[in-house]
Amino acid sequence: MKDSSPDVYVVIPAGGSGTRLWPMSRASSPKFLHSFTDGSRSLLQATLARLAPIAPVARTLVVTGASHAVAVARQLPQLPEANVLIEPSSRDSAPAIGLAAALIGRRNPDAIMGSFAADHHIADPDRLVVAVREAIAVAERGYLVTVGLTPTRPETGYGYLKLGKELPGAAGFAVDEFAEKPSPDRARQYFESGNYLWNASMFVWRVSAMLAELQRQQPELYEGLMAIAADWDSPRREKTLAKVWPMLPKIAVDYAIMEGAAARGLVATIPADVGWHDVGDWHAVGEILQGDENDNAVLGDVSLCSVKSRGCVVAGSSGRSVSIVGLDGVVVVDTPDALLVCSRESSQDVKQIVGMLGIDDPLR
Amino acid sequence: MKDSSPDVYVVIPAGGSGTRLWPMSRASSPKFLHSFTDGSRSLLQATLARLAPIAPVARTLVVTGASHAVAVARQLPQLPEANVLIEPSSRDSAPAIGLAAALIGRRNPDAIMGSFAADHHIADPDRLVVAVREAIAVAERGYLVTVGLTPTRPETGYGYLKLGKELPGAAGFAVDEFAEKPSPDRARQYFESGNYLWNASMFVWRVSAMLAELQRQQPELYEGLMAIAADWDSPRREKTLAKVWPMLPKIAVDYAIMEGAAARGLVATIPADVGWHDVGDWHAVGEILQGDENDNAVLGDVSLCSVKSRGCVVAGSSGRSVSIVGLDGVVVVDTPDALLVCSRESSQDVKQIVGMLGIDDPLR
Repeated sequence: MKDSSPDVYVVIPAGGSGTRLWPMSRASSPKFLHSFTDGSRSLLQATLARLAPIAPVARTLVVTGASHAVAVARQLPQLPEANVLIEPSSRDSAPAIGLAAALIGRRNPDAIMGSFAADHHIADPDRLVVAVREAIAVAERGYLVTVGLTPTRPETGYGYLKLGKELPGAAGFAVDEFAEKPSPDRARQYFESGNYLWNASMFVWRVSAMLAELQRQQPELYEGLMAIAADWDSPRREKTLAKVWPMLPKIAVDYAIMEGAAARGLVATIPADVGWHDVGDWHAVGEILQGDENDNAVLGDVSLCSVKSRGCVVAGSSGRSVSIVGLDGVVVVDTPDALLVCSRESSQDVKQIVGMLGIDDPLR
Repeated sequence: MKDSSPDVYVVIPAGGSGTRLWPMSRASSPKFLHSFTDGSRSLLQATLARLAPIAPVARTLVVTGASHAVAVARQLPQLPEANVLIEPSSRDSAPAIGLAAALIGRRNPDAIMGSFAADHHIADPDRLVVAVREAIAVAERGYLVTVGLTPTRPETGYGYLKLGKELPGAAGFAVDEFAEKPSPDRARQYFESGNYLWNASMFVWRVSAMLAELQRQQPELYEGLMAIAADWDSPRREKTLAKVWPMLPKIAVDYAIMEGAAARGLVATIPADVGWHDVGDWHAVGEILQGDENDNAVLGDVSLCSVKSRGCVVAGSSGRSVSIVGLDGVVVVDTPDALLVCSRESSQDVKQIVGMLGIDDPLR
């Protein structure tokens, strides 16, 4: 197996605002631009770094919104200018990933591409690289491949992949079904059966195979993306984008092509146990961070002084002194213009605050 | 009874740092300079205002440390310059109150003075005025009088006054004993007996009677204060203060004279139910403040946004947006350079933080 196949591209869709990680994550400065782990590299920077063994930056594309292009460009100075693809507006993941596939397909019709979210955490990047290489080998046989995560609990917040037959001569399985976020009862059944993996929307496929399914299942989206790709490297790019992009259906790639492809037996998965985490809320951040002897964790530029407290997460960019006394499982996020104090078990409710303060950008 | 007897003086010792109310209260800016109630008047300003019916500002003296003289002068612009008495160093309450008594005695040997802490809260100031007027009437008969507070719970954090015989022709009682802060068992006995009042160190006496007891029980302190008072209105004030003050015994007025005077039958008390509160810690602040429909209370310049939270206290001077989610009984204090998050039941432990950050002035 080659270390870096000339036919492999990496695509990183960098979207979503991560409102549950407010006030660090904002519409104007979303989750992927921040570090929620070691305090140095952003989730986006860490994503690029862990995929470097799969493809060089020359074959790595980031798809992001116009309002984040400057931040992305500055966080990833090594990325060629042409490799930052800017969506005029957010149309969900199928148009974003489809645009990258269409552009790669024009450069190299035989290319294989992998798509990986910009805002997840992987504790064991080496094992991810092994799994992606196995996914590439299976994708070369024509499958649309997902890297499926071994569940560690009966989580109700993720979609699942139902395993089918083992693939001959590969460490993968057919995927019989993409299952939506389950009820608690169903999540327990999935977890105990051993027949389900978490779907983290990590995809590896030949661009030709992906585009063929897109054409079959989403002809309107396919035609639009082809029109945009045809004009991409011409003076007509902006005009065509402005005309076509807003008309594209707003749909996630899982629904747009993966479910239908699974029904036709075209989807495979490589099970992987890589310490994956979607960093969905502040409670999750606390699970990722290394705590002190009382399991209190600090993230960013704050100095913590704690008395009789445990299981707390103190994050900030204010440089201030933060003192906690007699707290159990409380999150404190201290930014220059907003302060959040939240019980870890209520982390999901942070999005209500963002709603109350104003959806698009809470404080401006 | 006269509205404002020419012979009555009010003395307000303004000392103590209130470390349990950190980070709003600091050594450099102690509790009495801040509002913990309505957010407008400081505790000191409220104290002066509620005692205005007892004595005009011309006969009101504030005794405070050199480092707080400027702040006191600015908060009380109506107070004559000569009525701010500055202690070169803190020697506890007997030297502070004794100095005021000695100076008043030189101006008017027949004067009656009342002494009231600068950092307490009184919910019903009208009833306090009634009680103080009764105390003045009893003090005219020669007693050292305390205004005693009707206990509302078996509190272990306060000293108690043991009631003796009812005084003929007055709404007062003899005080048989000054009892120290009791054990929980003893506090319950005190509370249930109905024979004990809280001692809030509110004193009313003829200065001549007070100085006579001081001379009898604390001759060294008495002589020192007399020497200082003799030179107060002369060019020798500073020199005498510098020589004598540091030698004065460091002692509270309760121990210095009141206990001994009670043993001689010289102490009386006027029971009063005035909604007294010592504002001792952040939990207490929450009890004083008016909460919203979920019993969440805001103090100062912060804007609060709350979700699924109750019984919280959010105080600040930062002007920031503070959001609380899923919290029960948590205190958030947001100042420009320090943030405290504390469970209300651990409010007493805030002083540990001050100790950890450095006692004298935590952040400088």
